[in-house]
Amino acid sequence: MSYFTHLECAVPCGAGPYDPRQRQHLCTCGAPLLARYDLDRARQWSPRTLADRPSTMWRYADMLPLLDDDEPVTLGEGFTPLLHARALGRTLGLSRLYIKDESLNPTNSFKARGQSAAITRARALGATTVSVPSAGNAGNAMAAYAARAGMAAQVFLPRDAKAPFVRECALYGAQVTLVDGLITDAGRLAAERGGPLGWYDVSTLKEPYRVEGKKTMAYELAEQMDWTWPDWIVYPTGGGTGLIGMWKAFEELERIGWVRPQRRPRMVSVQADGCAPIVRAFAQGTERAEPWANAKTVADGLRVPRAIGDFLILRALRESGGTAVAVSDAELVADMQEIGRHEGVSAAPEGGAALSAIRRLVRDGRIGSDDTVVLFNTGGALKYLDVLP
Amino acid sequence: MSYFTHLECAVPCGAGPYDPRQRQHLCTCGAPLLARYDLDRARQWSPRTLADRPSTMWRYADMLPLLDDDEPVTLGEGFTPLLHARALGRTLGLSRLYIKDESLNPTNSFKARGQSAAITRARALGATTVSVPSAGNAGNAMAAYAARAGMAAQVFLPRDAKAPFVRECALYGAQVTLVDGLITDAGRLAAERGGPLGWYDVSTLKEPYRVEGKKTMAYELAEQMDWTWPDWIVYPTGGGTGLIGMWKAFEELERIGWVRPQRRPRMVSVQADGCAPIVRAFAQGTERAEPWANAKTVADGLRVPRAIGDFLILRALRESGGTAVAVSDAELVADMQEIGRHEGVSAAPEGGAALSAIRRLVRDGRIGSDDTVVLFNTGGALKYLDVLP
Repeated sequence: MSYFTHLECAVPCGAGPYDPRQRQHLCTCGAPLLARYDLDRARQWSPRTLADRPSTMWRYADMLPLLDDDEPVTLGEGFTPLLHARALGRTLGLSRLYIKDESLNPTNSFKARGQSAAITRARALGATTVSVPSAGNAGNAMAAYAARAGMAAQVFLPRDAKAPFVRECALYGAQVTLVDGLITDAGRLAAERGGPLGWYDVSTLKEPYRVEGKKTMAYELAEQMDWTWPDWIVYPTGGGTGLIGMWKAFEELERIGWVRPQRRPRMVSVQADGCAPIVRAFAQGTERAEPWANAKTVADGLRVPRAIGDFLILRALRESGGTAVAVSDAELVADMQEIGRHEGVSAAPEGGAALSAIRRLVRDGRIGSDDTVVLFNTGGALKYLDVLP
Repeated sequence: MSYFTHLECAVPCGAGPYDPRQRQHLCTCGAPLLARYDLDRARQWSPRTLADRPSTMWRYADMLPLLDDDEPVTLGEGFTPLLHARALGRTLGLSRLYIKDESLNPTNSFKARGQSAAITRARALGATTVSVPSAGNAGNAMAAYAARAGMAAQVFLPRDAKAPFVRECALYGAQVTLVDGLITDAGRLAAERGGPLGWYDVSTLKEPYRVEGKKTMAYELAEQMDWTWPDWIVYPTGGGTGLIGMWKAFEELERIGWVRPQRRPRMVSVQADGCAPIVRAFAQGTERAEPWANAKTVADGLRVPRAIGDFLILRALRESGGTAVAVSDAELVADMQEIGRHEGVSAAPEGGAALSAIRRLVRDGRIGSDDTVVLFNTGGALKYLDVLP
């Protein structure tokens, strides 16, 4: 049973509402659509029900985009560990550093959450072929969930995508197209090819449900922290779906009465020196982010020169009193190793980048020694072993 | 609170009991030691308590080897998904095929369970350096848990171990030694080097706690199947710790009253044509398995020419009415892909081998179309992508 009711423009521009029983992608104004729920009725839903729920993100099904008798397309995603990183924290002078370890998801990254939700709706809407442009992990996740749902998958990757991303797509039977350029170029080609063929496009925020899957990271944090918020959430930001989703979840959790209104976490977007459009826009105080030219970083998930949800990311950073930090490839690779050495956690370059950002904010006196800090390790190291020295 | 009391010879030969507050490795007779619990008192423990427990294998802490105030060394291992593989089952004519997906563990394999338990006790016993010979995944898991516990790790791998295994060890700060030969040779060298230096040896079944971690796979199966057993458990068998552990868990779960006495699952050991000591011994009806000469298979976890727990594995296969099946490398690689294509699950070669074995048993009429069959996918494909065509 879900309280899901309709879709709404994220701006909001006044168009809509949009009917989730039809395929919906963007608002007529070009902005992403967001799923809305009957939050007043949802106040009946009690956290006590969670004791009997599956240990996946679908434990929060009441606030996920299910209609009628929809069954989730699931591979056991979510409800990942929140690890108290005492040893790593000590090296930084932090007593309350936590790692949300998203590498324990299917396909080894947080992308599983978004795809589980997106493919669930795609199946309900009768899609038979799904497509996505990806830096790597989102393509792997989509391929896996499409296989699980019995759909054909078309994944568009930059030509220089690492071999493990390409091979993992093939393992799930997906068709891979390598595209000259970056994820934005891949997106263009995917739309061009798939449009006439009726492929269901699950590009970041061009369909409204990946953000719903990603928002469960905040539901879990709240549950794991006993319905309070940490002081800081430090989040590697490419397309930013997770950050947007968590910001949305804070609102929902307050509105349904599960978290009493309190200071929300300061949100920190972490990007790489070689591709930092959000960091630049945050510093310049603009509402949107200019596309980044010549994007380059070993953290593939951060190599996103333009995010369609940029204004939502920037809004969350500012409203939360957070910030945006860019780190170098050398720093983030060294910090993958620090996470491994001190905590035994397998961190993707993006996870390493989050640690580098925390290091910077501690040094600058922004993060205090008793602050509760959550580092999002968005994926594991296994697809990136070549970046290690 | 745990009902753990003492250690006992697995034969049992009559020596002992052994005190778990001291370092213990093998029985004086050379056999493995097993952890024993006060099962009569443990009958007080109710499954209703599980609702409030962590979604890791430590939810069963009452029946795990904890003493006094021991805190587990944990990275969130266990409580992995049990997926109903409808599409894959259809290709085999099976309506109740399930995959226990162990790839969602830390370090991408079921080895995390054993090492979490072993390193927990090693720390409690004051060890500062731990060592292990490994085909790959056990070394990765030990390295991760040692890092988490603040211990030095020494991993001995065959010289031809795949690069991802070596690099993942390094990521966790472990010292890796490459050894000419197989895991048995690596074990010899590790003992030779580490003995004089007081390293704590966590070789398969040469310390008593990895099997305790592995047995939680059966606790989870029981909980996930509502306190009943499947008809078949199909398990890739190298050292066989998991199979021995699950067989032990069946007994424990019956004795504490959580599963009413009923037909236990038929246990199937799956090995590779190129290294099948258990299959050969099962066919010949012997109590022990002769070491396999010139062991060779792409399924690294199955490249174990001699298992110290061979007699326990063979005992479980026979008492359960199960069997042992060897499959070719070509079959198991093709079946990694079948699992990926039909279910979106990332399967290691060992998981592929389990599917090949099921295929064989269905064809031979051993497994019936309505039988409940659990395929153990002991790890993910990511460290083995080179075996794919």
